[in-house]
Amino acid sequence: MKSYRKELWFQTERRRQMVRITSDLEDCIRESGIKEGLLLCNSMHITSSVFINDNESGLHRDLERWMERLAPEHPHSQYEHNRGEDNADAHLKRTLVGREVVVAVTEGKMDLGPWEEVFYGEFDGKRRKRVLVKLVGE
Amino acid sequence: MKSYRKELWFQTERRRQMVRITSDLEDCIRESGIKEGLLLCNSMHITSSVFINDNESGLHRDLERWMERLAPEHPHSQYEHNRGEDNADAHLKRTLVGREVVVAVTEGKMDLGPWEEVFYGEFDGKRRKRVLVKLVGE
Amino acid sequence: MKSYRKELWFQTERRRQMVRITSDLEDCIRESGIKEGLLLCNSMHITSSVFINDNESGLHRDLERWMERLAPEHPHSQYEHNRGEDNADAHLKRTLVGREVVVAVTEGKMDLGPWEEVFYGEFDGKRRKRVLVKLVGE
Repeated sequence: MKSYRKELWFQTERRRQMVRITSDLEDCIRESGIKEGLLLCNSMHITSSVFINDNESGLHRDLERWMERLAPEHPHSQYEHNRGEDNADAHLKRTLVGREVVVAVTEGKMDLGPWEEVFYGEFDGKRRKRVLVKLVGE
Repeated sequence: MKSYRKELWFQTERRRQMVRITSDLEDCIRESGIKEGLLLCNSMHITSSVFINDNESGLHRDLERWMERLAPEHPHSQYEHNRGEDNADAHLKRTLVGREVVVAVTEGKMDLGPWEEVFYGEFDGKRRKRVLVKLVGE
Repeated sequence: MKSYRKELWFQTERRRQMVRITSDLEDCIRESGIKEGLLLCNSMHITSSVFINDNESGLHRDLERWMERLAPEHPHSQYEHNRGEDNADAHLKRTLVGREVVVAVTEGKMDLGPWEEVFYGEFDGKRRKRVLVKLVGE
């Protein structure tokens, strides 16, 4: 069994932003030399997500509005976590969207459907944050 | 290390439908010959889910109503993604319910609790769609 | 390839409760002898979760209120599942928060970010329930 580990770093310009990382993960698989196995990709932070969805800007705006409706940022005072912090909503948004994805690796590539793209979902950005990529296989 | 891959195909009669797939996954494990390892099962589409919950029809109707409350289909015009499409709500429902499950394989079987059943959750159906099953282990 | 399996048992005092299990999982990794691989940790029940978030009591109260807002317990009669049962809301809360986490194992330890802590999220407690830990690697 082979294994591989890499950290990807991000610093978004906006508090909330989605960054497509599909090709970064493909690079990791190539570097690892793994042909058959599993790829885990997770945020190492508790206020951001890794998720799979469509690479369509209208949908991304829908997702943003939807997350604001279900887990609104404002008013900050509605959350007990926001004593000295202001990011309680980011913890809830990440709970909604999920921490991680696990993707099959088949014949040296991510085994994705035709519209599946992997995104880093930042909900409390403007600072350096990390994503972990771990591969196991052969 | 052994690996195994299979696609399961579905075409539901209704736009939204839940299909129990626990025994399909058990067949995959048998076919793979893997006794100890991990099973990944994910939708290859971004408008459907694979999830684990109870096989109880009242709960499934509760889930359907709950998803409609949190991510309503109508009016289609509320979503920017719905320009030529009408399935933005299906992308959101799938975000809520999740893309994938990872299940332990122990002594050649899925290592599930007594009430855990695996479902394909279709949110934009009436056409052929796929689920990926990937196994790694020994 | 090595594999390892353990069940962790919980009986919470309250219907809804969060129990930190990070160090239990670290014990499992040590016991397994696995240095590089993947750890799966999932609830074996369909009314509880395993999730990763911050170990901060204010945030946990925010999470509790947020889950009650999106998937309220009362009135029990709003759910079709609640015929003889009263835990439909627990099924929905667990759908929101997720069943499982997959964590990388690197150099014999969980490969977590600085604030990542693993929790058992109980939504229908006061009775004995189980979490599965499965490790694969080398």
